[in-house]
Amino acid sequence: MSPEEFRRQGHAAIDWIADYWASLDDLPVRAQVAPGDVRRQLPASAPEAGEPFDAVLADLDRVVVPGLTHWQHPRFFAYFPANSSPAAILGDLLSSGIGAQGMIWATSPAVTEVEQVVLDWFAEALGLPEDFRSDGPGGGVIQDTASTATFTALLAALHRASGGEVRRHGLGDAGWRVYGSTQAHSSLVKAAIMAGLGEDAVRAIGVDPLTQAMDLDALRAAIEADVELGLTPVLVHLAAGSTSTGAMDDVVGAGRIAREHGAWVHVDAAWAGVAAVCPEHRAHLAGVESADSFVTNPHKWLLTTFDCSTFWVRDRAALTGALSILPEYLRNAASESGEVVDYRDWHPQLGRRFRAIKLWAVLRTYGLEGLRAHIRSGVELAAHVADLVAADDRFEMVTEPSLSLVVFRLTAGDEQTLAAMEEVNASGEAYLSHTTVEGRAAIRLAVGSWRTTEADVDRTWRALQEAAAAQD
Amino acid sequence: MSPEEFRRQGHAAIDWIADYWASLDDLPVRAQVAPGDVRRQLPASAPEAGEPFDAVLADLDRVVVPGLTHWQHPRFFAYFPANSSPAAILGDLLSSGIGAQGMIWATSPAVTEVEQVVLDWFAEALGLPEDFRSDGPGGGVIQDTASTATFTALLAALHRASGGEVRRHGLGDAGWRVYGSTQAHSSLVKAAIMAGLGEDAVRAIGVDPLTQAMDLDALRAAIEADVELGLTPVLVHLAAGSTSTGAMDDVVGAGRIAREHGAWVHVDAAWAGVAAVCPEHRAHLAGVESADSFVTNPHKWLLTTFDCSTFWVRDRAALTGALSILPEYLRNAASESGEVVDYRDWHPQLGRRFRAIKLWAVLRTYGLEGLRAHIRSGVELAAHVADLVAADDRFEMVTEPSLSLVVFRLTAGDEQTLAAMEEVNASGEAYLSHTTVEGRAAIRLAVGSWRTTEADVDRTWRALQEAAAAQD
Repeated sequence: MSPEEFRRQGHAAIDWIADYWASLDDLPVRAQVAPGDVRRQLPASAPEAGEPFDAVLADLDRVVVPGLTHWQHPRFFAYFPANSSPAAILGDLLSSGIGAQGMIWATSPAVTEVEQVVLDWFAEALGLPEDFRSDGPGGGVIQDTASTATFTALLAALHRASGGEVRRHGLGDAGWRVYGSTQAHSSLVKAAIMAGLGEDAVRAIGVDPLTQAMDLDALRAAIEADVELGLTPVLVHLAAGSTSTGAMDDVVGAGRIAREHGAWVHVDAAWAGVAAVCPEHRAHLAGVESADSFVTNPHKWLLTTFDCSTFWVRDRAALTGALSILPEYLRNAASESGEVVDYRDWHPQLGRRFRAIKLWAVLRTYGLEGLRAHIRSGVELAAHVADLVAADDRFEMVTEPSLSLVVFRLTAGDEQTLAAMEEVNASGEAYLSHTTVEGRAAIRLAVGSWRTTEADVDRTWRALQEAAAAQD
Repeated sequence: MSPEEFRRQGHAAIDWIADYWASLDDLPVRAQVAPGDVRRQLPASAPEAGEPFDAVLADLDRVVVPGLTHWQHPRFFAYFPANSSPAAILGDLLSSGIGAQGMIWATSPAVTEVEQVVLDWFAEALGLPEDFRSDGPGGGVIQDTASTATFTALLAALHRASGGEVRRHGLGDAGWRVYGSTQAHSSLVKAAIMAGLGEDAVRAIGVDPLTQAMDLDALRAAIEADVELGLTPVLVHLAAGSTSTGAMDDVVGAGRIAREHGAWVHVDAAWAGVAAVCPEHRAHLAGVESADSFVTNPHKWLLTTFDCSTFWVRDRAALTGALSILPEYLRNAASESGEVVDYRDWHPQLGRRFRAIKLWAVLRTYGLEGLRAHIRSGVELAAHVADLVAADDRFEMVTEPSLSLVVFRLTAGDEQTLAAMEEVNASGEAYLSHTTVEGRAAIRLAVGSWRTTEADVDRTWRALQEAAAAQD
């Protein structure tokens, strides 16, 4: 592909995206395909001769788009929306176009230094403690996902708790134990499995039935019982915004208990953390100043194309101690000087793309004012949903709204709740997801897109009302 | 940013990339900055008000480009080049623009099905065994990097060897042991550390001093000695193209020994595997038909923008058994039908972008013929370098050329070898990296870019000759 051809096709790809976004309102949110529908439209083998790039664009329209659930649709309210934005798309494009690989500072210094600067900016914007900035013993890094952040936090915790023994000789027989509430993200169990601790090592601590926040007495009892048995508490995982209902664990109280026993405190604010760009939405992060690590995902609610998960540690030595590897071919004067950070040692991967450009582009293009307005809009729309729920006695709230997440159900029962949701999802009008709270089914509606308006919420609500009526 | 503004800025970003690529020949390959040079040019805080996107582009020119080592430069020969291409950049752009998140089939079916199809295409194109295709018990997935592939292979191996006990109860006291040559990629040790086995669990097997390939007698002896001690061999890592010299382990012979002891065979062909698109460059993959897992990185030598690491397993049940987690909010009818694959269970992350588009775009736009021509060009240019080395008695080859990698040194000695390389790197003329082979320093020159011509190689060689002359 010649430079001229790249320009031409690149402009076409940009236009395709602009057209795709413009078309979203009229597309069904959820893909209307059955398993195998997409693959059976594609040839069985790669072509021998090259095809024009236009053929790829044509197949996007013909084969791919009908098989997509549209995460950027203004009426996508399921899971936590993973919101993209024009500035992020272009930032990501520039990263691809530069094609630098920043495994260590020396392999392309700007990749590392822009990331350090952007993480410092973002820490300040969220009101995170000074200790997390790069000019002290801590620092931030962009992970792909919060799952990876939680996993690396666990590895760092094991490293610190074992004084490096785990890294050298393996887990041994310390009986490491990890604590999170019953509402902790599934990545906590996955991290324990990957780290070799096994599912059994994770203690699921009960929650308050109303708030779904971790029961601190139960946490203390579980830790003390384990210590009594000769087991070793290594990490306490706190949800600042759980996946199911947006529940907020008490980071201050739980952190105190964890520290009494020398356990690492990891605050998982994957979804809700970015709300802290607004000073009035920082209450859930109280206590983070004494946490050992913190993660939040700009790729969820902060307009930054997936993936972009920002992760900070108070003491980067525990993290790099756990993960550093130095083969001969990566030895270099800059690393040996101690003046630079080599991000290779901050995550499982060795190679890494220029991860910071898209977040840099988002912070600059929208500015903190623009990002605050975006967060506030989501919170307001969620409050509007809560009003709609309150005004219709076929529905009831399950928990208090949490920022931009509303959890509710049909009073008629679980079966009706799930059937109504499925009817809306199947219609393509909107896309919602479900959960269970205290054993009962509930519908989750999480506002995230900058393109979602009150009209989108109202239209979704009407569809839900009709589906509820059909259940009577 | 309005749709019109997105088009305008998007075209500007595409043009910026085209201009950047056109400028590369005239830029120093290695960044000419000292630690801190980039960050001190950036403001201390994120802006309150948004800035025009043009400001980001302007800062790329002003701050970022001087701080980059240019991985897409035609005279970038260090490490293994991570080659991008126009089609891959645009494929990646489309993935960002669609912004779908394919953690499970149900969250956007085309994300999963296109990936399955593309991995089947690519398996066929590389001549990989039928067992790795998605229509049997195996299958392929795109990992971010080969480090992640090796780590997940180890987790799958532990799962199989323990009958699921490791997942449930942790590593226990089986004394799991992992084997790789002294030349195995550093990600093997990192994987053992992350999985909780510790560095001690990795047995570094000696290599033939000439070929740098694993000594099979030593492998057998190490495994038998461990079994004698009551330890449990769980995985044998074979390099089909080592990082240092491109050494090829004997997959047939080592695989036989591994299987005698029930160990998982993981073939790490991160760099060299993609050469198998050429039937004449498949010899190093002999034996892969009995391997349990295989990884190669289109993001190295196959024109696919970082990251894109293709990973296959013979039995996907071992992998998903090790990694599956099913929280309530991800339960869905498609998953429960067993008719679909949920890629969440194939890697550490939960969320995932539309990973397959860029490889799909590369395979289609260049076609297998175009990719074969690219690989052959790299091999020919490496042979040309070997000829240049042979023709100048200040230089000598260290090992036989391996595909597009040439490893050589100055006959004058280690110090002179490293000094000559550093002189070339510091000049910005070309960028090379070093290694040690049998205790002696060597220069690695790996050809990778589709933009590298014989003139680039000759220009690099002249710079090396001048640097060598300066050492006399």
